[in-house]
Amino acid sequence: MSAPLEINPYVKNIQQLQSQKLARRSEQIQEDIRRGSITSFKEVIDVSSGNPHSGGLRPLTFVRQVLAACFYPELLDSDGLKADVKQRAEKLLKTCVGGSVGCYTNTAGIPEVIHGITEFISRRDGGVPCDPQNIFISSGSQWCLSNILKVLVNTKSSLPCAVLSPVPCYPTTLMSLRAQGGLHVPYRLTEEGGWVLKGAELQRALQSAQGVSNPVALYVVNPGNPAGLVQSRASIQEVIRFVYENRLFLLADEVYQDCVYGENSCFVSYKQVLMEMGPPYSHSVELASFHSASKGVIGECGLRGGYVELVNVDQAVMDYIYKMFSLDSCASVSGQMVLDLMTNPPQPGEPSYPLYCQEKEEIRRTLVHNALKATEAMNLLLGFSCQPVEGGAFMFPRVDLPQRAIQRAQEAELPADMFYCMRLLEEAGLMVIPGCDYQQEEGTYHIRICIMVHEEVLDELLRRLRTFHNKFMKEFS
Amino acid sequence: MSAPLEINPYVKNIQQLQSQKLARRSEQIQEDIRRGSITSFKEVIDVSSGNPHSGGLRPLTFVRQVLAACFYPELLDSDGLKADVKQRAEKLLKTCVGGSVGCYTNTAGIPEVIHGITEFISRRDGGVPCDPQNIFISSGSQWCLSNILKVLVNTKSSLPCAVLSPVPCYPTTLMSLRAQGGLHVPYRLTEEGGWVLKGAELQRALQSAQGVSNPVALYVVNPGNPAGLVQSRASIQEVIRFVYENRLFLLADEVYQDCVYGENSCFVSYKQVLMEMGPPYSHSVELASFHSASKGVIGECGLRGGYVELVNVDQAVMDYIYKMFSLDSCASVSGQMVLDLMTNPPQPGEPSYPLYCQEKEEIRRTLVHNALKATEAMNLLLGFSCQPVEGGAFMFPRVDLPQRAIQRAQEAELPADMFYCMRLLEEAGLMVIPGCDYQQEEGTYHIRICIMVHEEVLDELLRRLRTFHNKFMKEFS
Repeated sequence: MSAPLEINPYVKNIQQLQSQKLARRSEQIQEDIRRGSITSFKEVIDVSSGNPHSGGLRPLTFVRQVLAACFYPELLDSDGLKADVKQRAEKLLKTCVGGSVGCYTNTAGIPEVIHGITEFISRRDGGVPCDPQNIFISSGSQWCLSNILKVLVNTKSSLPCAVLSPVPCYPTTLMSLRAQGGLHVPYRLTEEGGWVLKGAELQRALQSAQGVSNPVALYVVNPGNPAGLVQSRASIQEVIRFVYENRLFLLADEVYQDCVYGENSCFVSYKQVLMEMGPPYSHSVELASFHSASKGVIGECGLRGGYVELVNVDQAVMDYIYKMFSLDSCASVSGQMVLDLMTNPPQPGEPSYPLYCQEKEEIRRTLVHNALKATEAMNLLLGFSCQPVEGGAFMFPRVDLPQRAIQRAQEAELPADMFYCMRLLEEAGLMVIPGCDYQQEEGTYHIRICIMVHEEVLDELLRRLRTFHNKFMKEFS
Repeated sequence: MSAPLEINPYVKNIQQLQSQKLARRSEQIQEDIRRGSITSFKEVIDVSSGNPHSGGLRPLTFVRQVLAACFYPELLDSDGLKADVKQRAEKLLKTCVGGSVGCYTNTAGIPEVIHGITEFISRRDGGVPCDPQNIFISSGSQWCLSNILKVLVNTKSSLPCAVLSPVPCYPTTLMSLRAQGGLHVPYRLTEEGGWVLKGAELQRALQSAQGVSNPVALYVVNPGNPAGLVQSRASIQEVIRFVYENRLFLLADEVYQDCVYGENSCFVSYKQVLMEMGPPYSHSVELASFHSASKGVIGECGLRGGYVELVNVDQAVMDYIYKMFSLDSCASVSGQMVLDLMTNPPQPGEPSYPLYCQEKEEIRRTLVHNALKATEAMNLLLGFSCQPVEGGAFMFPRVDLPQRAIQRAQEAELPADMFYCMRLLEEAGLMVIPGCDYQQEEGTYHIRICIMVHEEVLDELLRRLRTFHNKFMKEFS
């Protein structure tokens, strides 16, 4: 006699990810390894998500020492911590209500942490000012984005609200959008030449939406995920002109801003370009830019700290956004503190500076090395082609699967790249994500691999992939 | 030329809380104190929320030591930590992917932490089993509730979906409901006799909803917030029969389960009573029970850890709930760990046990003392009447305001209890929340005060309140 619930159809509408099936299978395989019934590999290498510490990268000592002292301030009396670690912890504890990380903070975050973020943004953008009223901290950048979508997507509107989003696209954003009752209008990135964003394609996508939906926003990811494009200033200007002309809210996911590898690439923020362009753009384009402590060199995904900066957004809209954030009380204090440490690292002359630089440089060197090595290795494999990885945490090589493999996948009722990934997991203990989860262009197959791992892990994963792939291609050729 | 955004009307529909105005005013006052332009009090006492460490209660040493060691595992080599602290930290670190608190966890939480929670629930409920598949950890219990509301509230349904919720009610729940496009159908708690929940009132509320909405769930808070009722077993049984007969999903907010003060009160969980009642109830009533590390003796609000246990929920619905949680990746690892420490504290014989018990007992004694002392003190004030506080973190005394004060409030376009609270903040530096934020019964006025504070803070707040109140009554009599 339980209630016959009518589930929210928007929630029902959220796509089922293939990666969830892979995650479940991976758990079974790990159990089999523990029980000794799998012996061909000793552990599953999981490069399905950007989770740097799981891939053998180390947390930054300064960050962890300050956090430990904030959690247990008695450590401030010990000899084990450097003076600047103690000073930073004391400073951060003073910003907490009651001097405790166990207290709620303001809805938008600890004012002093927000202030530090505004200084970071301003330095990054060559001095462009940043208003603390425009920053909201939350438990991750996706949660910020989701709160903004809740305000922008009006399910009572005569046509469904839509967001123009790239293809391929990180799926969580699209799932959040669908859960809100919004539609996804895809614009394709051009794989040849490095997943380039072309203005003509934005126009095509917008026209395709006319009459069937009400486009309210454009979503861009720079540096890219799953494909590691770093946009040029000219490309960003083109996007800004497009959203200006078409009155779209610009949602810029910039969480990989400190992960740029290409020799000729450099990260420029949407905010900076917008301000450089001057009026009418600079004072009218509504922009939300997202950043996170989960990504990049700091890589503290588990602490859940992200923020959004809003630009040119009406006060009334800001008030609604504030309300949405207030429903979650506040972000975790550890997440907020790690944002502070990320945006305001040790400075030259401070005792922690040398080690901090050394650790950071080592991670950065690893990432640059991995991006190059992995791309080269993939391009040597028959059937694989991989665009240069200029930035971000991932590569997204294309794989031309043999017709017989595609047929076998159809019989198994699986997308062909999912069939490939499942076999890769089962036979080689390597977990990557199939391109079908990223709304790739029909008829193409890809896999997404996180390259934010220790060099030894990369070597082992490339070895496993090579061996598996050659066997797979032989089996199905 | 910025886009004329049509804001989501459900978000627009969220009520404006008076407490937000008070919070802004409090910030100004604190600034004035720093500048020396206010000298009549040295600091604002903020008892507007349940934020124990801000009111002078101390975090538990064991909890903070384990967390510090998890953040900075080098501490495990130091002599400063007891053996059981090190063992627990080592055990928790082993449950983290890559051995780092900086890694994402499973969507529902770290399996070992979930396992510990199931054991805690089973012990609490006299051995009733608890399935780990039914637990979802997130960044706070309200966030769990919000995810479940997203699944239950169908905005495409012919009549708006509604949740029966108490009056007075904690506003965040109602705001989340409205943001989802749901309606609030109020049922009144009876103030006389201690804010009792009466079955006849549930019936009346349900009938009032007929024809205008589609009631899908009943929301209860036990122990109460803002009013500190602890429900009896008989009352819980009555609620369970009611939701069974009317096919409502039961949402039980039980975050104050370890805060029970009344001599004859004791907390019994909805799950336990449901299972005791046997079939047909025990295998058909759909229940979600919420708990949190923010409340009670542990009081770690800033770490953002809460969980929900779901009972008798269809697998298809569970899958949708899982999807909603997956959009947030996972809860902060520090929040998850504090849940582990809360549900599995040190045991007799372990080195940390004596201090843990002493600290916990001190907090508990403080809370029992405060509940009694504050109630007595309020009942001595002319115009105030306060029901006994049997549990929870708050008292919710009624104040009969003089007609002239009500009139003055009307002139200032403020609810009368908001007018009172604003004056209390400005003249005595005491921040409490007016009953109007809790959907109190029309024509009545209340204030909500957090009693989860150090005894000295309570004494000072009662002193300030008494002085202010006598002056206020004199002014308006």
